[in-house]
Amino acid sequence: MDWPICFFSDYGYTDDFAGVCRAVIARLAPQIRVIDVTHGLPERDVLAGAVVLRNTLPYMPDKAVILAVVDPGVGGPRRPVALRSHGDRIFVGPDNGLLMHAADLDGGVSDAYELSNQELWLSPLSATFHGRDIFAPVAARLAAGLPLDAVGAPLDAEQLDRIDYPQPRRHRDGLTAIAVLVDRFGNVALNLRARDLEKAGLIDHVELLTGDERYLAQVARTFQSVRRSDIVVLIDSYGQASVAVNNGSAAEVLGLDAGDEVRLRRLS
Amino acid sequence: MDWPICFFSDYGYTDDFAGVCRAVIARLAPQIRVIDVTHGLPERDVLAGAVVLRNTLPYMPDKAVILAVVDPGVGGPRRPVALRSHGDRIFVGPDNGLLMHAADLDGGVSDAYELSNQELWLSPLSATFHGRDIFAPVAARLAAGLPLDAVGAPLDAEQLDRIDYPQPRRHRDGLTAIAVLVDRFGNVALNLRARDLEKAGLIDHVELLTGDERYLAQVARTFQSVRRSDIVVLIDSYGQASVAVNNGSAAEVLGLDAGDEVRLRRLS
Amino acid sequence: MDWPICFFSDYGYTDDFAGVCRAVIARLAPQIRVIDVTHGLPERDVLAGAVVLRNTLPYMPDKAVILAVVDPGVGGPRRPVALRSHGDRIFVGPDNGLLMHAADLDGGVSDAYELSNQELWLSPLSATFHGRDIFAPVAARLAAGLPLDAVGAPLDAEQLDRIDYPQPRRHRDGLTAIAVLVDRFGNVALNLRARDLEKAGLIDHVELLTGDERYLAQVARTFQSVRRSDIVVLIDSYGQASVAVNNGSAAEVLGLDAGDEVRLRRLS
Repeated sequence: MDWPICFFSDYGYTDDFAGVCRAVIARLAPQIRVIDVTHGLPERDVLAGAVVLRNTLPYMPDKAVILAVVDPGVGGPRRPVALRSHGDRIFVGPDNGLLMHAADLDGGVSDAYELSNQELWLSPLSATFHGRDIFAPVAARLAAGLPLDAVGAPLDAEQLDRIDYPQPRRHRDGLTAIAVLVDRFGNVALNLRARDLEKAGLIDHVELLTGDERYLAQVARTFQSVRRSDIVVLIDSYGQASVAVNNGSAAEVLGLDAGDEVRLRRLS
Repeated sequence: MDWPICFFSDYGYTDDFAGVCRAVIARLAPQIRVIDVTHGLPERDVLAGAVVLRNTLPYMPDKAVILAVVDPGVGGPRRPVALRSHGDRIFVGPDNGLLMHAADLDGGVSDAYELSNQELWLSPLSATFHGRDIFAPVAARLAAGLPLDAVGAPLDAEQLDRIDYPQPRRHRDGLTAIAVLVDRFGNVALNLRARDLEKAGLIDHVELLTGDERYLAQVARTFQSVRRSDIVVLIDSYGQASVAVNNGSAAEVLGLDAGDEVRLRRLS
Repeated sequence: MDWPICFFSDYGYTDDFAGVCRAVIARLAPQIRVIDVTHGLPERDVLAGAVVLRNTLPYMPDKAVILAVVDPGVGGPRRPVALRSHGDRIFVGPDNGLLMHAADLDGGVSDAYELSNQELWLSPLSATFHGRDIFAPVAARLAAGLPLDAVGAPLDAEQLDRIDYPQPRRHRDGLTAIAVLVDRFGNVALNLRARDLEKAGLIDHVELLTGDERYLAQVARTFQSVRRSDIVVLIDSYGQASVAVNNGSAAEVLGLDAGDEVRLRRLS
């Protein structure tokens, strides 16, 4: 069938990890195209990886193998899996919740298999690099047309591990949100969407409370309506409410990291 | 026609920005090859991007779509454009001067269009990620043979925005230059070429003044003729005069960033 | 013949260096696939590059051109070379030892040539960017079927430059090793393999001495058997003994950089 492989990982760019996986794919299925979506996922942060997979899924080819590796439990009891979504994409990666938000968005899981067919793995199997030894070779073969049920034993989709997307807390005067992703420009994506802001009456201007600090921010659609260095809350290109600083880094200005709480308060 | 796309941006490598654009291209035109030239352009620095595009243009395929995004004005009034050069390459990106030095080098702009045909954009259009929603899909279709005049309304090439390349200031005893690019090795490219040094009599040895500091530097063709840790001014592989330290980082040793002034003085 | 090119360098990701080489290859041989294995090799560290090439070689396609550039001597007397291994892969890069450990693993060098045929180079030749001007264009043509003996003058394999892999020092109570590679997760690979640990009786638990500090570490197969934040010595996915911290960075915790000595002592 020759589907492309969309490859996501937290392997970074200083090492050979992602590149060796690409070489393994080229050895086994030289005709398959690999689209490196990102290898900059935050290290070992399964939730952040799950959010990026879900955000970007609508932009991936309709027929594709999604190969995703953020795998702090490598070498332990977590299962390697392959899933087919009702949207007919195939997902390959660890069974730690990484794949599930994207698979849900793609119609939910229709078939799930444990990658237990060791004939498809590289040998010898390492204890710490299943991306190279299990996930990449299986993804290569699936992309080249191997039937999904050849990868191993079927699993009940209900058995698959899940990771909860954090919910904001509601207050009388606003919301407490969590920073879920910080990008290269220092924009801080929160676990909020446009409708959450509207429902909570967070419009035009809001107060942001982080640790002991308090900031005034404008709720805006783009940077164009605000002055240089102003703090804004805007709906980013994936529909997430995001704290940003015009021509600057909100993460630096507000001292925010992924996982931090941000309280948004209505101005009365 | 199936031209390759040469992709330049300041999207960096920690996020999914460049990867999602690659996926968008693969959705629309799976047969098109994407050459990622760099996504490490300095953030929001249109001049630095323009310099890199011009420097590297002679090494790009003769028939190619140059897709370039450094776009601090995204979501504002700056136009998205596509240009054809007299060298018959196609350039796609924001109309903020980024594309113009390379297009000039390629014979100048022969045809220019605003990307106003919204049928070619992704929908919904985000306010902050036109690389994904406008530039990548239009570049994909142009690379696959869409006629240039299908992208939108024609523009007068004279109307296109330009960004000035900074000129060195001449003194009786030398030049004041600007650092335009700093590379990973800490080499600092100046807005000077070999003939500027010669005309100003800056040969063999020069004095470099940065802020309050003063350094002695050798004018050299390669690192091979100088001692370890010596400061040199050499003509780099793109023809730019560049401050470098043998086996070290000139940016660190001299405390230089892009945009800083460096005075070069003849030794009398 | 159309072999893929496996491209390794210390060019990093902030500049256009690797991307321009990819463009040069696409100009000369558009049908050739480039597999970017890594451009994050430690800057100017020929030994680290040689170790990564050797580690990853078994995962590269059997028929491939290995293009590798870590080239602190560029512009000097070191020769540019192309080698064929008895394993029938082709290696292109500087003659500074970078290629030799991988070529040895691939059966040893069967044929060696100096890249002295200047018709295959880009012109004008720069003094500092032979990756773009010599190595990439020659690799492109070799990948597309140019006979190896067309690249220049034959060399005696005995004349090729070599770089010694450092040997651990043996003590009555253990070993002194060298940190050869530090990865993005802070894992520190040593110049030791499993059999070195066994021979020295370094099993179960060992003491690690770095500078003035002393740490207790567990010898383990995976992270799964150890507690969070524990220091472990494990055999990594390339067979190297490696110091790691469960869910943390051993390089930070132990203050280790590539080149540092680590003493491993038996617990009595």
